[in-house]
Amino acid sequence: MTAHKEFSEEVRIDGVILARLTPGEDLFASLENIARIHRIERGVILSAIGSLKEVVFRNVKLNTALPVRTENTQEIEEAGPFELLSLEGNLFPSESEGKPIIHLHVMLGSPSGGVLGGHLFKAAIFSTTEIVIGKIDGSSVYKAESDLTGLWELRKK
Amino acid sequence: MTAHKEFSEEVRIDGVILARLTPGEDLFASLENIARIHRIERGVILSAIGSLKEVVFRNVKLNTALPVRTENTQEIEEAGPFELLSLEGNLFPSESEGKPIIHLHVMLGSPSGGVLGGHLFKAAIFSTTEIVIGKIDGSSVYKAESDLTGLWELRKK
Amino acid sequence: MTAHKEFSEEVRIDGVILARLTPGEDLFASLENIARIHRIERGVILSAIGSLKEVVFRNVKLNTALPVRTENTQEIEEAGPFELLSLEGNLFPSESEGKPIIHLHVMLGSPSGGVLGGHLFKAAIFSTTEIVIGKIDGSSVYKAESDLTGLWELRKK
Repeated sequence: MTAHKEFSEEVRIDGVILARLTPGEDLFASLENIARIHRIERGVILSAIGSLKEVVFRNVKLNTALPVRTENTQEIEEAGPFELLSLEGNLFPSESEGKPIIHLHVMLGSPSGGVLGGHLFKAAIFSTTEIVIGKIDGSSVYKAESDLTGLWELRKK
Repeated sequence: MTAHKEFSEEVRIDGVILARLTPGEDLFASLENIARIHRIERGVILSAIGSLKEVVFRNVKLNTALPVRTENTQEIEEAGPFELLSLEGNLFPSESEGKPIIHLHVMLGSPSGGVLGGHLFKAAIFSTTEIVIGKIDGSSVYKAESDLTGLWELRKK
Repeated sequence: MTAHKEFSEEVRIDGVILARLTPGEDLFASLENIARIHRIERGVILSAIGSLKEVVFRNVKLNTALPVRTENTQEIEEAGPFELLSLEGNLFPSESEGKPIIHLHVMLGSPSGGVLGGHLFKAAIFSTTEIVIGKIDGSSVYKAESDLTGLWELRKK
């Protein structure tokens, strides 16, 4: 079992990307595109509001132990549309240095006033999304798969 | 139909405003006041916690198409009080350069442990609110109304 | 009654701490440790995702007036595990300058897709937590107990 170690390091956020997405765009493809255009190797979402539709997200089932396997999670698919109330997450390169791995958690407002959310797999823009991404400088952290948790996790070289 | 274009640009957040609001204050009026005092032309909320009362927010109804019209949304009014769990949003000048347009999405904790939230119209401070706002430098982005979506959206000159 | 005044001040976030926590760790103890190692006197959480278990949080009961007393709040304890969808909060020194007071609000995704959350008292890491904390420079703000609200609040010297 590869147990990734905890770490903490001081980095900087000098450049910040302000972006606005338009109806029908794929959220993940748009973020990959923004990362490519603005050369974001490592980034963190500082703010995002707008509205989303056609979302797929998952949560972990109760009383589950590690590693996180598909059968221990519950996938939820909703057509929406929903107000995008929060989008937290980051993007880091994988060990093999391909396109960045985007890890997003979402929360969505429903007509009853209740909030839905989870680990996001897929979403399209409904009306717009206004997003602010901080570029992380001074880090060599990357993503690698962990046998212990079954997830792609941050690891320090 | 005016379809606002997507865009992305690199900006900076050099100055950051730390503020604390007190019981009974109007959240939107307080933010306008802070923007005026600290000359925030363009800003993004980086963090906010505390508690709110007398909130009015709305969500989009399911199976709704653009543009977003009032009849396609559900407005919710709650006396509270509630823990303020997240306040995401930004402020940008309008085309006509008056006071900034403040766009906020809120999430609130209820006694059952469930979370309520949506696009925020109105709120007063219950106990306190601790808020951190980043000043966006190097941007000429402003807000303009879109025929396509029916909303005030970011547009790049 | 000591009514703490509202205030707003311009500060800076130059250094940013990127950290990753591992299964079983106590969230508050980990944050105290990170604050000590990286000499964070005043800080704000800019992003956090991952998953948590063994959480204790509370919300304020409806129709409650100030001050916030224990009997006016509802404490909720959940074994989880849950996706960590948002962690908002900050850390500031107390008047007596001991270890920082960490004030956190959490939101968690449940298998139904619904979201739980409130003012967080206790949590352990389930799979991982990836966290970004901004160090606040140029502030002399600290935490002091308020008779008016019954809470530890930000106060400017």
